[in-house]
Amino acid sequence: MTDALTADERKTDLQDVLANGWSQPSDRDAITKTYKFRNFIEAFGFMTRAAIHAEKLNHHPEWSNVYNKVEVTLTTHDVDALSLLDIKLARIMDRLHED
Amino acid sequence: MTDALTADERKTDLQDVLANGWSQPSDRDAITKTYKFRNFIEAFGFMTRAAIHAEKLNHHPEWSNVYNKVEVTLTTHDVDALSLLDIKLARIMDRLHED
Repeated sequence: MTDALTADERKTDLQDVLANGWSQPSDRDAITKTYKFRNFIEAFGFMTRAAIHAEKLNHHPEWSNVYNKVEVTLTTHDVDALSLLDIKLARIMDRLHED
Repeated sequence: MTDALTADERKTDLQDVLANGWSQPSDRDAITKTYKFRNFIEAFGFMTRAAIHAEKLNHHPEWSNVYNKVEVTLTTHDVDALSLLDIKLARIMDRLHED
């Protein structure tokens, strides 16, 4: 079972991803980020790589795509809160975006 | 240049896709449909096939995915209205979903 982030993890791991461009929506315990790419091929290529990681983690994003933009929201539905799985997937996506 | 659907095309082509589960949002000239799949792999597989068709047509959807659901909105930004490209992509997606 995945647990919600502890107070300590919020001060360290969550702050770390927030410092890297993720933000917290006001209405739920989640993190969101919009990635921009040069074109659709680059945007969907990013999604494809992220999708395989998500499936491997068995932790899936809520995401939308319009041409060169991909908007991602991460939360852990099992606990209705952020968990370390969200931090992990956020870091993977950031890494893929930098590649 | 792509043209907005003519009155005749709205009576034939548009009605045809509306009869196949697409609907028109009230706030813009577009069509939208939500596809459901057995799981994330099936949903993202559908998106991947549709993405390649979209790029080939140079006509891209607005779409979002949450686990096994894919919500698609089609419109033609160049003319700020529906065009035959939207009808074409809608039919392709319906065909991919049936495969």
